[in-house]
Amino acid sequence: MKVVALAGGVGGAKLADGLAQILAPGDLTVVVNTGDDFEHLGLHISPDLDTVCYTLAGLSNDATGWGREGETWRFLDTLRGLGGPTWFRLGDRDLALHHERTRRLAAGERLSAITRDLAQRMGAEATVLPMTDDRVRTIVLTGEGELAFQQYFVERRCEPVVRGFRFDGVEGSRPADGVLEALAAAEAVVLCPSNPWVSLDPILAVPGLRPALTGKIVVGVSPIIGGRALKGPAAKMAGELGIQPSARAVAEHFERLLIGFVVDHQDAEQTPAIEAMGARVLSTHTIMRSPGDRLRLARETLEFAEGLRR
Amino acid sequence: MKVVALAGGVGGAKLADGLAQILAPGDLTVVVNTGDDFEHLGLHISPDLDTVCYTLAGLSNDATGWGREGETWRFLDTLRGLGGPTWFRLGDRDLALHHERTRRLAAGERLSAITRDLAQRMGAEATVLPMTDDRVRTIVLTGEGELAFQQYFVERRCEPVVRGFRFDGVEGSRPADGVLEALAAAEAVVLCPSNPWVSLDPILAVPGLRPALTGKIVVGVSPIIGGRALKGPAAKMAGELGIQPSARAVAEHFERLLIGFVVDHQDAEQTPAIEAMGARVLSTHTIMRSPGDRLRLARETLEFAEGLRR
Repeated sequence: MKVVALAGGVGGAKLADGLAQILAPGDLTVVVNTGDDFEHLGLHISPDLDTVCYTLAGLSNDATGWGREGETWRFLDTLRGLGGPTWFRLGDRDLALHHERTRRLAAGERLSAITRDLAQRMGAEATVLPMTDDRVRTIVLTGEGELAFQQYFVERRCEPVVRGFRFDGVEGSRPADGVLEALAAAEAVVLCPSNPWVSLDPILAVPGLRPALTGKIVVGVSPIIGGRALKGPAAKMAGELGIQPSARAVAEHFERLLIGFVVDHQDAEQTPAIEAMGARVLSTHTIMRSPGDRLRLARETLEFAEGLRR
Repeated sequence: MKVVALAGGVGGAKLADGLAQILAPGDLTVVVNTGDDFEHLGLHISPDLDTVCYTLAGLSNDATGWGREGETWRFLDTLRGLGGPTWFRLGDRDLALHHERTRRLAAGERLSAITRDLAQRMGAEATVLPMTDDRVRTIVLTGEGELAFQQYFVERRCEPVVRGFRFDGVEGSRPADGVLEALAAAEAVVLCPSNPWVSLDPILAVPGLRPALTGKIVVGVSPIIGGRALKGPAAKMAGELGIQPSARAVAEHFERLLIGFVVDHQDAEQTPAIEAMGARVLSTHTIMRSPGDRLRLARETLEFAEGLRR
């Protein structure tokens, strides 16, 4: 089965990794949020692309949920001594990826071409693509005014109260090279367990992307389990947006898209409410602690999607 | 005694370090060649400034003659794996200095202000200044056409035959903030044992700098010993320029400036010819292998200059 997975960072990357272990390399395309991208020290940094590439290549640091395993910090330690900005943690190896991406962008290559190539060089087998080759920036509307995403997320540690989001530049953006082709060929589209508001919404806001899901078996996996997000600010955001954080709320958010929705077994009692919206529900263990968890959830999700095709 | 030292990379940095161990911090200003500066991976790299700062701060790698002691190479190794350019060796710690300099330049600060501050943060006590805050680039005229200095020096390993040099942008440049003030206050000016053509000439070509040496006790130290350069391409360059490489040839090159000239004892027989040009000569051990050598040569050079004042 040809599959496109839409993903943000950690949770999305883990399920994408599970899918990559089951599907043939040519059958999986992971389309990744780039609304979190930003410029820092003159470098183009793509946190979600990096997390997905590192995870698919088996290089990710699973303890921290970001960056590379076995990373060293000579650069950052020295920068600190020189009085430079160290709020964004750049490891010595990680820095090479940012530099190489930035160098190739400056030379005129597209982010999608660069990402395909670098992912492969790192050892990822599935195709990894940014949602767009154009500049889109997630802006967090907070009680303190507008904040660039990384400012909100890293510098302010998600403390400011969220009132909404906008994706600067998205109206004029186009899906990256290869994204619409992958969607056209896909039988199933998996909305990975990523933050609905700041990971998946930016992807779905790229003009032409949402219509390309029409007629596909779209299956979402809830990033909210027992009313909480395993990682990241999704539940806090929901509360601040006046939404009771739940699997059901996520299903509601994507209501028009979903053919199927995967919830954790502890949220099984929300099944009737979600099915009433028109999506079929699979309830299972969705917490991915081990590589085996990723594989099992990916397999169940694919079998669920397969069943929905009939 | 207030002293200004003009210096390029390794040899110049060593003598500057000797001077710094004798003179009070406020009495020594090292004015450094920036004709070797270049842009690489979006970074502003100043090889001679770096060598001088690392050396004065006790951080230099004396085995290689460039870069930092105890350097690590995670960044470069990773960049190689990603297919990036690795011809210029950037260590993990060294990279932080380039990044911080570049960041502050982009923020609108002058190279001189940044250098003063970063040198201090690294632990250098003397004042270190670039020759200019303006963009000057040494171009090597070779049998194969014009080459940017680092292309000639690092990428081509000084192989192309040299026909001459030009210092792109020097005509419109001005001495960096603080350089003319330091020269006005100086009693002695030391031309460190650096390459005459590509380290000291660019400094002296900055408009206003050479006239500021008028009336000063200008003492040069020969970088050529026994017809050879201890480090770098000075002797090879001399030959290709049709000059017999010798201490005397260096003295001739700076003839109008020199009040005194220090040669190695093995070149003592050139003393009469050099004194015939009007400069007094001190012949001594000028090879600086140990920290003690630096200190001794600096002390002898200062005493020699002191004697020339009477």
